[in-house]
Amino acid sequence: MPSVQITWVAGRSAEQKRKIAQRVTQALVEEGKAKIENVHVTFHDLPATDYAEAGVMVADQKRTA
Amino acid sequence: MPSVQITWVAGRSAEQKRKIAQRVTQALVEEGKAKIENVHVTFHDLPATDYAEAGVMVADQKRTA
Amino acid sequence: MPSVQITWVAGRSAEQKRKIAQRVTQALVEEGKAKIENVHVTFHDLPATDYAEAGVMVADQKRTA
Amino acid sequence: MPSVQITWVAGRSAEQKRKIAQRVTQALVEEGKAKIENVHVTFHDLPATDYAEAGVMVADQKRTA
Amino acid sequence: MPSVQITWVAGRSAEQKRKIAQRVTQALVEEGKAKIENVHVTFHDLPATDYAEAGVMVADQKRTA
Amino acid sequence: MPSVQITWVAGRSAEQKRKIAQRVTQALVEEGKAKIENVHVTFHDLPATDYAEAGVMVADQKRTA
Repeated sequence: MPSVQITWVAGRSAEQKRKIAQRVTQALVEEGKAKIENVHVTFHDLPATDYAEAGVMVADQKRTA
Repeated sequence: MPSVQITWVAGRSAEQKRKIAQRVTQALVEEGKAKIENVHVTFHDLPATDYAEAGVMVADQKRTA
Repeated sequence: MPSVQITWVAGRSAEQKRKIAQRVTQALVEEGKAKIENVHVTFHDLPATDYAEAGVMVADQKRTA
Repeated sequence: MPSVQITWVAGRSAEQKRKIAQRVTQALVEEGKAKIENVHVTFHDLPATDYAEAGVMVADQKRTA
Repeated sequence: MPSVQITWVAGRSAEQKRKIAQRVTQALVEEGKAKIENVHVTFHDLPATDYAEAGVMVADQKRTA
Repeated sequence: MPSVQITWVAGRSAEQKRKIAQRVTQALVEEGKAKIENVHVTFHDLPATDYAEAGVMVADQKRTA
């Protein structure tokens, strides 16, 4: 532990995810005393038609983030 | 908040998800005093080979729902 | 299926959750053709110190929703 | 209930998942007194670029498991 | 990986969970070629007022499972 | 979006979680182009009897991390 699950709309590159996984893992080790070998980080990429904010699908918003 | 994660077997249209996201968001705002701009709803579509009920994959059931 | 997981800061009554579970279930049955007996809805109540929006814990915000 | 969510890197066959779903369901019924018809098991297959252990993506590790 | 998240209504003993974690882990190792040291299993115990099936809270059902 | 769910064994202070939420949010904004106001981070604290690694409950391990 810990297990970290990140859910968002697809669109980030493998390199962006790689950096995020590193920084999230570092934060947990440095601030939370987690053992690095036990930190799991997963990315759940969703289509913009499968993520709603304020009742509106991201696909139907003006922006794409 | 709140974050709502809906997991099911793929097969619903974008329009069906759009309506469900609206109704779920309304329910949380009207009954749960959530602030609408903070309500996130995500749909996690799975293949029928990745969802089991009663130990049987949906793909192996007679029905597809 | 579907499985619905609702995560938020604790503070809603059993009656509020009961109504939300009913409305979410209805939405999935009516709009998504889900079989009612297979709809699972879970509420994950978190302390306000365990939910952050925009990098700020709800406990540290001016509001409590 | 219960709902079981299994998240890993894609690569297992439908037959492997079928057996795992059966065994997980049996364990919950036999050890946990769950009612079999209420046990839901879902598999969330991720690309190896979306799962990090110890801050390193599985795609960047020497092994693929 | 894999990460396994089991969500249900509270009421099982530590011993029951211990056995379930063992059996679930074994199933993933034996059937899914998972490396045992990477298997994480978490139990999310909910009050019976926080888990609904078919739109009805477990707390409001005749049975408690 | 994104929604970030961090699951671990309880034991970190509110201050530790506050710092982790900040750093995780920063990582998503800086590396992933997320809009800060849409980043949700939740902590799911579990008892050591509810988190197993390699088939062994953390409560039954020699260490507590």
